[in-house]
Amino acid sequence: MNRIGKLNWAFAGGHIPFASTGEEPMFNSHDKIAILNTAEEEAEIEIFIFYENSAPVGSYSLKVKAQRLRKVRFNDLIDPEAIQLERKFSCYLRSSLPVVVQFSRMDTGQAANAVMGTIAFPAD
Amino acid sequence: MNRIGKLNWAFAGGHIPFASTGEEPMFNSHDKIAILNTAEEEAEIEIFIFYENSAPVGSYSLKVKAQRLRKVRFNDLIDPEAIQLERKFSCYLRSSLPVVVQFSRMDTGQAANAVMGTIAFPAD
Amino acid sequence: MNRIGKLNWAFAGGHIPFASTGEEPMFNSHDKIAILNTAEEEAEIEIFIFYENSAPVGSYSLKVKAQRLRKVRFNDLIDPEAIQLERKFSCYLRSSLPVVVQFSRMDTGQAANAVMGTIAFPAD
Amino acid sequence: MNRIGKLNWAFAGGHIPFASTGEEPMFNSHDKIAILNTAEEEAEIEIFIFYENSAPVGSYSLKVKAQRLRKVRFNDLIDPEAIQLERKFSCYLRSSLPVVVQFSRMDTGQAANAVMGTIAFPAD
Repeated sequence: MNRIGKLNWAFAGGHIPFASTGEEPMFNSHDKIAILNTAEEEAEIEIFIFYENSAPVGSYSLKVKAQRLRKVRFNDLIDPEAIQLERKFSCYLRSSLPVVVQFSRMDTGQAANAVMGTIAFPAD
Repeated sequence: MNRIGKLNWAFAGGHIPFASTGEEPMFNSHDKIAILNTAEEEAEIEIFIFYENSAPVGSYSLKVKAQRLRKVRFNDLIDPEAIQLERKFSCYLRSSLPVVVQFSRMDTGQAANAVMGTIAFPAD
Repeated sequence: MNRIGKLNWAFAGGHIPFASTGEEPMFNSHDKIAILNTAEEEAEIEIFIFYENSAPVGSYSLKVKAQRLRKVRFNDLIDPEAIQLERKFSCYLRSSLPVVVQFSRMDTGQAANAVMGTIAFPAD
Repeated sequence: MNRIGKLNWAFAGGHIPFASTGEEPMFNSHDKIAILNTAEEEAEIEIFIFYENSAPVGSYSLKVKAQRLRKVRFNDLIDPEAIQLERKFSCYLRSSLPVVVQFSRMDTGQAANAVMGTIAFPAD
């Protein structure tokens, strides 16, 4: 199988909303990224978080096993520092191997859930 | 007409939700892909599905006729193996001819339907 | 100002839903494209519509004035042939000048409106 | 850190809806852009707005500090001229340094909020 994807990805419009409606945790408001590693080796990922009014935080390190998908909720990134609720952020991700990254949001702050998804920006 | 598209496509963030509301099948929750073949020959498509915790499955084979659109619900991919409800997945698709691929979701798990769409990642 | 955009665009996942709720015409269900022409000349656009089970139809011709935006509802494409409600379609668009094309949907078939938007695929 | 992004961005499908529901300002209808500057220098941004029936307006000037995110609501662009409610628009943005731009909409004109997001078109 071909190596699919890019080494560098970014998206600008992250936001973890505070209010949630509906069953937990399935309809809990969240921003997340899905990372696909089609290669036959594990991918090492570094994530940097950028804010409006303070210095960037990172890297957050994680691995994606060979030929696996990994979904990461930004709520779950806690080392070196948790992402605060209601804070806007951007994300830059780099990988040791080509991967495909998708960004999505479920916002359940009003009665109906709203989902949004977009391919991240493949920077190289 | 020019040959439009790419041979390799991927997206990371697939998910078939379990719960549905509204009339069946129009508002049934689903993830799907739309494949456009503008060429004057039939395109042969192979789809590989990647998971979080098990080996990839594939290829699922299908054809898109010359100068036709084909929409495929992931719920309908059953050979070699059905995609389980509530399971997250990624998708890698390759084609014998350039095609254009779009990913979309209708999630009707709460009272209002939510739709999401994004261009897949054109890998080459 | 630089010439911004591409000559060839496509998207695969078009669909004009039948049912609508809410005030007409603002919340009428529709698929549409927005075309931005930043150049100092008028752009001539040709649109071809592809279907699942019949031959492509086109070209639909339209112009986008110099340094203007034009939004087109697929409901309004009637020459050479109207697009039928509830029919899935794909779209290939070519332009005499570089333009930027965005596809969007408002689906009001259930009680809440759902919007979806994605950049079209820049084919060249 | 690598310089991430592009100098020129555009999107075609802007629209500031008039009606809003829910708490202000969190659920106020709006279109906005998020701009990520990963560089160690401030980025100078110029935005040009295109309309359906009148000449483009611009440039709107703003800065994005080194290694910061900046979100801009189009409602807040007032110099040289405010963007009118219910008016459709397109946007061309150029930057002195590579940046990543994402476009999003929250439309609360009916009872449930709908969110939409897409990567802008990276024009160079």
